[in-house]
Amino acid sequence: MYSKGHGGNIYDEAINYDFSVNTNPLGMPEDVKEKLKENLGDICEVYPEETCYELRKSISLKENISEHQIICGNGASELIYGLVRAIRPQKALVVVPSFSEYIRALRAEDTQMVYYHLAPERDFIVAEDIMSYLTPDIDMVFLCNPNNPTGKLIDPDLMLDIITYCRMNQIYVVIDECFMDFVKDCQKHTRKGLIPYNPYVVILNALTKLFAFPGIRIGYAMTSDADLIHAVNAQLPSWNVSAVAQLAGKEVVHHEEYVEESRKYVFREREYMYEEMKKLGLKVYEPSANFIFFKSDIPMYKKLLERHILIRNCDNFDGIMHGYCRVAIKKHNENEILLKEMENIINKNMAVT
Amino acid sequence: MYSKGHGGNIYDEAINYDFSVNTNPLGMPEDVKEKLKENLGDICEVYPEETCYELRKSISLKENISEHQIICGNGASELIYGLVRAIRPQKALVVVPSFSEYIRALRAEDTQMVYYHLAPERDFIVAEDIMSYLTPDIDMVFLCNPNNPTGKLIDPDLMLDIITYCRMNQIYVVIDECFMDFVKDCQKHTRKGLIPYNPYVVILNALTKLFAFPGIRIGYAMTSDADLIHAVNAQLPSWNVSAVAQLAGKEVVHHEEYVEESRKYVFREREYMYEEMKKLGLKVYEPSANFIFFKSDIPMYKKLLERHILIRNCDNFDGIMHGYCRVAIKKHNENEILLKEMENIINKNMAVT
Repeated sequence: MYSKGHGGNIYDEAINYDFSVNTNPLGMPEDVKEKLKENLGDICEVYPEETCYELRKSISLKENISEHQIICGNGASELIYGLVRAIRPQKALVVVPSFSEYIRALRAEDTQMVYYHLAPERDFIVAEDIMSYLTPDIDMVFLCNPNNPTGKLIDPDLMLDIITYCRMNQIYVVIDECFMDFVKDCQKHTRKGLIPYNPYVVILNALTKLFAFPGIRIGYAMTSDADLIHAVNAQLPSWNVSAVAQLAGKEVVHHEEYVEESRKYVFREREYMYEEMKKLGLKVYEPSANFIFFKSDIPMYKKLLERHILIRNCDNFDGIMHGYCRVAIKKHNENEILLKEMENIINKNMAVT
Repeated sequence: MYSKGHGGNIYDEAINYDFSVNTNPLGMPEDVKEKLKENLGDICEVYPEETCYELRKSISLKENISEHQIICGNGASELIYGLVRAIRPQKALVVVPSFSEYIRALRAEDTQMVYYHLAPERDFIVAEDIMSYLTPDIDMVFLCNPNNPTGKLIDPDLMLDIITYCRMNQIYVVIDECFMDFVKDCQKHTRKGLIPYNPYVVILNALTKLFAFPGIRIGYAMTSDADLIHAVNAQLPSWNVSAVAQLAGKEVVHHEEYVEESRKYVFREREYMYEEMKKLGLKVYEPSANFIFFKSDIPMYKKLLERHILIRNCDNFDGIMHGYCRVAIKKHNENEILLKEMENIINKNMAVT
């Protein structure tokens, strides 16, 4: 009942390989797991520190942003709701397809939505015509960069135009950079450098993806708008970030080498999978994060599920058509298995038709 | 910054004994801790099951309520916010002093509030005059039973009158029974038996208190109003209950013997502390849950803090006056230490004055 249809739903089916979840293929750092195990008894029995002060301090070092400009949440999704409730937009601009929680949160607030539809014939890119969707009566814009599920980045010049327009018209731009750490030239694309200078830019991020612990949940938002931080906090329940999550977060953010290693692994495997999937004759969109978006005329989701492999069927994303799927970049041997099974499915299909 | 002033804030001070947190003095069951440790690596790395189906199934057996009438949250506090947002009350009745999250959540929704003030001269009981505060224009009532921080129960006949009035006037009554498991004759006081028959009764509960894992967080709401469940779910972010919490919850709810043992322990220690605190000359309110509410002319919170003992200073509860404090029932040896230190403080004060 009431499944929201995201990836990662390994609970309904007998799954051997889960390619539906876009987390770091190297998994959660072992030493962080160990630290959690050692301290588990103690941290379960105490209330979480309400203000997440130490966690914010740790994140501030990773992000080079003041801890006073960071809000932590029970996953980025909680902060999406918190931001929408704090800003109370009458009208918001969203891109479709994109992460579905933006629309869920805006709908929960009865916000009128303007949709910018990504077109398959333009390779699902956010193009300059998005500027004509920006009108002064809009209060809030959600941009996922790189976008989930398409993996596409917004051109930095266009991003600047959007941000400038929004700044002039007092429109909050929430840029979800949850997958930014997996982007090759992420420094060129992240807009977190604007935080101290532009109170209308809010950057969302999470530790869930980069450090592969979606079962624990930590997201954070960064903004220099102190009133907005106050208003978001007023919308969040007390103790929203569990003591387990706070400890994991504090431990993990200093794993810089691990991040570098993970990035290199993802870059290599992404290139490999992208090339191999193209060879299979699939319509594959050039990836920039740790997942690959593609189209297949064969019902690939269903066929792979029969082989106990779960991929993300994108049919239920708003504004997406039939046949689109997303696969995560996983460990090399797992990626090989996926490719092999896709090949088998395609060959079997050709033999029949 | 932005501390919400609840109990359990052991992070600011050097605390040896924390009496500010009202969780089970026997702590979290050891086998559940072990189970979590064993499975920690795996559950961190997967997304939580979105619908909490297995957890709801487990809770349904504990509560004898259909799993379809249960919503799980990241602590009861998240559900307080979810309920307020789903019901969108124009006007709500709250009791003061009580758990502060009701007022925080109503304030976040800009709800007009009517306050029923508990009076010290009437021993902080909810009396029959609460009926005159109930008017048809009220949409929602919060009742904490037994009340936090006073520990007082609402007379069952009066509770029935409130519920009947609310049923007739389509007012949602949210009864927070988070401490009900520590009440001696809880079967006489819990109103969960009404769930299947009265869609305007919502019961809140949590596993946090009874099983002493506030660092993990699980709360749940029970209601037979399917539309309300749907509306609350629309207000909750995806994956709101972590995979760690779901596993802990599923494991813990079947610990019936542990609950019985805990109840007996609390009853015995509560009686002991109540009698001993009265002997110290404190104004002690007869407890019904796992904590004791009292008044002292000596600044007991401050004096105990100097001795590295944290109790709950109730000064920051809405509608409460200076000098009121709350202490949890803890292990016998800890309770003895608290009593001894209180006695020392009182004796020292008498020597000075």
